[in-house]
Amino acid sequence: VPSLPAAPFLYPIVDAALLGGRPLDVSVGALARGGAALVQLRAKQLADDELARAAREAVAAARRAGVLLLVNDRLDVARIAGADGVHLGQRDLRPSDARRVLGGDAVVGLSTHTLEQVDAAAGEPVDYVAFGPVFPTRTKSDPDAVVGLELLRQARARCRRPLVAIGGITLANAAAVAAAGADGAAVISALLSAADLEAAARAFVAVLRGRPD
Amino acid sequence: VPSLPAAPFLYPIVDAALLGGRPLDVSVGALARGGAALVQLRAKQLADDELARAAREAVAAARRAGVLLLVNDRLDVARIAGADGVHLGQRDLRPSDARRVLGGDAVVGLSTHTLEQVDAAAGEPVDYVAFGPVFPTRTKSDPDAVVGLELLRQARARCRRPLVAIGGITLANAAAVAAAGADGAAVISALLSAADLEAAARAFVAVLRGRPD
Repeated sequence: VPSLPAAPFLYPIVDAALLGGRPLDVSVGALARGGAALVQLRAKQLADDELARAAREAVAAARRAGVLLLVNDRLDVARIAGADGVHLGQRDLRPSDARRVLGGDAVVGLSTHTLEQVDAAAGEPVDYVAFGPVFPTRTKSDPDAVVGLELLRQARARCRRPLVAIGGITLANAAAVAAAGADGAAVISALLSAADLEAAARAFVAVLRGRPD
Repeated sequence: VPSLPAAPFLYPIVDAALLGGRPLDVSVGALARGGAALVQLRAKQLADDELARAAREAVAAARRAGVLLLVNDRLDVARIAGADGVHLGQRDLRPSDARRVLGGDAVVGLSTHTLEQVDAAAGEPVDYVAFGPVFPTRTKSDPDAVVGLELLRQARARCRRPLVAIGGITLANAAAVAAAGADGAAVISALLSAADLEAAARAFVAVLRGRPD
């Protein structure tokens, strides 16, 4: 049965569109060596057959590295690729649907963007709740309103599940995110824009654990 | 175990974007009363949560009417909605994936657009092969090349599975499609543009069976 990494953990989201030609399997391996124990694959631009191929490649790389691999949005792709779970948004299929398709052992995460959604997530069969965007982000074309650190602290106080902060998290603000009580920090741009994924992941893990270089 | 209707059968594809405000469940019921025994739900514009809701509504209506309901593209939506099967395109997840997610009893169809793809479909675990577009169509934004009736005849000769003609089929050319050997005719615009779905379906069934009014 897969379980979430110990807090505070780094949660890289590998967006296939932001790899800039780097092979997906190599990238997952580098993030794992840098200390990420949980990785999400996001590839909204790919046709379904390409998405399935990417998911299988990412899952295989994650298995080799001994880390968990979740697929964004798609229960069917997660299932056929043998992923460890799925991350769902508010407009996606429901966590209860994920349990039906992936079983009780899958890791299921849910995005929330307001305290009301955080409260509602308490009634869903999810393993973690993501909350954000904590800071402004350009990764999403139609982002939700920035919640900020104060709302993150309030979400922390109201949420009994592991809480993952997401949105605009960088090396400069990751310590504040951990201090606000987030169990994990989901990072996209600040990792994938780095030339050395492994070193970038290692730096994030150090900052989250309060041991920056 | 669901089975395909007896040939020649009408196969309405209900595109949620083309319903023009008509309720989905009422539309499925009208098509069934008009003689359609197999209906596909297509809703590429909907968010996943809305798609799941539409699929559940369509499946419930199909059950009440005693007809089969397939979902376009999405294995996960088909599964959680309890649909009878799924229709897949060349760039979607594979028929073998559908078998893994939906089981051996599900109805699985595959779109093909060339004779090579028809031949390749012989090795896939599919219940029917769709071939087209037989005629020009405006339903798809980026349509494949029109195959025409002669290629449809050739596909018929090479395909041992039930063959469904698709693309631009109207009351004016449906008899020629049946004469070319198609087991079924998938129809979108010519049905959904009709004011009376039941009467339109009945007219198609009569033409396909060689008994036009």
